[in-house]
Amino acid sequence: MADDSTHPTAPQDRAADDAPVLSERDGSGVLRLTLNRPERLNAWTPQMGERLFALLREADADPQVRAIVVTGAGRAFCAGADMEALSGISGTRVEIDGRSMALPATLGTPVVAALNGPAAGVGLALALFCDVRFAADDAKLTTSFSRRGLVAEYGVAWQLPRLVGQGRAMDLLLSSRVVLGAEARSMGMVDFSLPRADVVAEALSYAGTLAQECSPRSMAAIKGQVLRAQSSGLDDAADEAAGMMADAFASEDFAEGIGSYLEKRPPRFPGLGDRE
Amino acid sequence: MADDSTHPTAPQDRAADDAPVLSERDGSGVLRLTLNRPERLNAWTPQMGERLFALLREADADPQVRAIVVTGAGRAFCAGADMEALSGISGTRVEIDGRSMALPATLGTPVVAALNGPAAGVGLALALFCDVRFAADDAKLTTSFSRRGLVAEYGVAWQLPRLVGQGRAMDLLLSSRVVLGAEARSMGMVDFSLPRADVVAEALSYAGTLAQECSPRSMAAIKGQVLRAQSSGLDDAADEAAGMMADAFASEDFAEGIGSYLEKRPPRFPGLGDRE
Amino acid sequence: MADDSTHPTAPQDRAADDAPVLSERDGSGVLRLTLNRPERLNAWTPQMGERLFALLREADADPQVRAIVVTGAGRAFCAGADMEALSGISGTRVEIDGRSMALPATLGTPVVAALNGPAAGVGLALALFCDVRFAADDAKLTTSFSRRGLVAEYGVAWQLPRLVGQGRAMDLLLSSRVVLGAEARSMGMVDFSLPRADVVAEALSYAGTLAQECSPRSMAAIKGQVLRAQSSGLDDAADEAAGMMADAFASEDFAEGIGSYLEKRPPRFPGLGDRE
Repeated sequence: MADDSTHPTAPQDRAADDAPVLSERDGSGVLRLTLNRPERLNAWTPQMGERLFALLREADADPQVRAIVVTGAGRAFCAGADMEALSGISGTRVEIDGRSMALPATLGTPVVAALNGPAAGVGLALALFCDVRFAADDAKLTTSFSRRGLVAEYGVAWQLPRLVGQGRAMDLLLSSRVVLGAEARSMGMVDFSLPRADVVAEALSYAGTLAQECSPRSMAAIKGQVLRAQSSGLDDAADEAAGMMADAFASEDFAEGIGSYLEKRPPRFPGLGDRE
Repeated sequence: MADDSTHPTAPQDRAADDAPVLSERDGSGVLRLTLNRPERLNAWTPQMGERLFALLREADADPQVRAIVVTGAGRAFCAGADMEALSGISGTRVEIDGRSMALPATLGTPVVAALNGPAAGVGLALALFCDVRFAADDAKLTTSFSRRGLVAEYGVAWQLPRLVGQGRAMDLLLSSRVVLGAEARSMGMVDFSLPRADVVAEALSYAGTLAQECSPRSMAAIKGQVLRAQSSGLDDAADEAAGMMADAFASEDFAEGIGSYLEKRPPRFPGLGDRE
Repeated sequence: MADDSTHPTAPQDRAADDAPVLSERDGSGVLRLTLNRPERLNAWTPQMGERLFALLREADADPQVRAIVVTGAGRAFCAGADMEALSGISGTRVEIDGRSMALPATLGTPVVAALNGPAAGVGLALALFCDVRFAADDAKLTTSFSRRGLVAEYGVAWQLPRLVGQGRAMDLLLSSRVVLGAEARSMGMVDFSLPRADVVAEALSYAGTLAQECSPRSMAAIKGQVLRAQSSGLDDAADEAAGMMADAFASEDFAEGIGSYLEKRPPRFPGLGDRE
């Protein structure tokens, strides 16, 4: 299925115009996933989640995909849960998979969020669990939860303090105040802020650099290391690194990394799944 | 006792003018606690601590209090431990309750620090354990400990790196150098820095917003989530969030949060203790 | 041996001109260690590591050394592993001591890095494990690993997120993009950035202040507290602090700290090893 998305003009893709998530692949190893309910500011629905997570898992298993960009159609990234859908569950006790939103962080493939416009609530949560974030200078970002009688959803209470520090996270979570992309960048909530018109192009360009110049093996290893190190001691992280370094020195990717460096040419790293 | 403080002209309050901590409540659910030894730059004494902690606990049990502001009388926030009192214990081994200063972080009610002037040593520790910090641009902030032959007191070695990062925390703790409010803000040590004349008013306004627009239930839940998540793994935090989300969807506060949103009116969340 | 280094004109020191690390001590308790392969941009070799770690351990056992500055000879700090040496181990599985690079963080003596020029790969790792970092505004800093087919080495996956936050760390580790000293400072990756000509002098001055004005006992205690608190809960850190505070109040350093404060004179703290 992911293969079809490499041909934006194929019938299946035209059919997908009303799919909750659009999927496009370019020739450089970058997959672009676009939340696609623009008339609702890409408000989150269970169907959108299912589709996005399926596409992310599929991409992570595909050696041709070396970096993923997640963005939104139209003028928003994701305005949060669809309030009309949500109001239907008010007063009921629904089953939630709390781990679902952290999926991007657990993949081996790097995931870049391009916040082309507002991100709120669950939409912000999704962005926070991507690896790197680009935002429009004027994109409005808010946690929202405290103003809806909700809690810090999906591990955001864990993730946000690790991005911006505990004090700033508490400010943002208690008050649900809106911060713009530029302020978010000064906090570390996003990594790059830039004019709205450039956000998606810059995120794609950054992802293209990851895809073309960085070892997929290295990136998958590093993502796992950083995530595990958040809950481990320094000694354990250092011991783990020692074993992984020894493996890396013996790897094809290191031979290519050092060879291309000494020969002053671009590297040609193998894809992750191509290896075995 | 806290009720008396809602009537600033009542006899008990006039008597409290020489109390080590002043307590004032406004009509909007905000309690203001003022460290009150202005002639000593509000230097910390055991009596001040006892009184402050008692007032904080009392406020947290009172559903009428939805946000707390801690500030200092006169031109300082708190210049640290009273040095003359401290010199009396030099050379002796005193019993310390190391957990006492973190009390604000463990309450369900949000606590905002308004650093109207210098905060040093234990005074800074108190501020760091509040949830959100406002500081005068020119307020002098210092850890002090290394220049007095002391250690990182009361869990500051745990808290400060989580606010500003480990490198900055090490710089501030090893050198005890003074940073001004504006630099402290750029680090995440305080969340807002502004002209000295505006600090208390802005902190009260922020606290008023929490009290009026944010769910007390949500804020108490979020404070607990963030504190626990500092010492847990992502999976545990996400699993906990799932259970809390399910509870929240079934809550009165969510019904009000979504109702007020859809009806475009201010929310009227119940107080925490009013619920049961 | 460290004593010889106090006499820069002694024969042994002249012999050391081609040593991989130069060692100089001034009269104020500051030891300066200089990575010394300037013609190779101080590229890291096993010999350099052995020598540096031996000098650091020696200094930490010497009560005359109260602060250490690590810098690089010539125009670089450390350009990373020597690529020609590294290419020799490509394809082999070498034994690594993953904990070696974190040595500065585990010493009782404060270690200040002066990044006079580029720091890459293992050179950056060394800097990140120092306690405080000064960098030239235009010093080029990069993790490098993902572009060489390597992993986050030596506990950098643990340390970097604790300095700059997880999002920025992920950006820097996945992309290996170069950041200059000034941007690194805004992230908390370094603590001070300044014109290149001033970096070493300012780092030495800062270290001199630590050596002259701050208690060695306090600094050693604080380093241990901060490191342990990264992997502990708040309650444990607060309980530990209580015991350490009680010990500190009974210490010679506190008597001197408070005495010098009340007498408005510079403190004369005993050296760490002088105490017993």
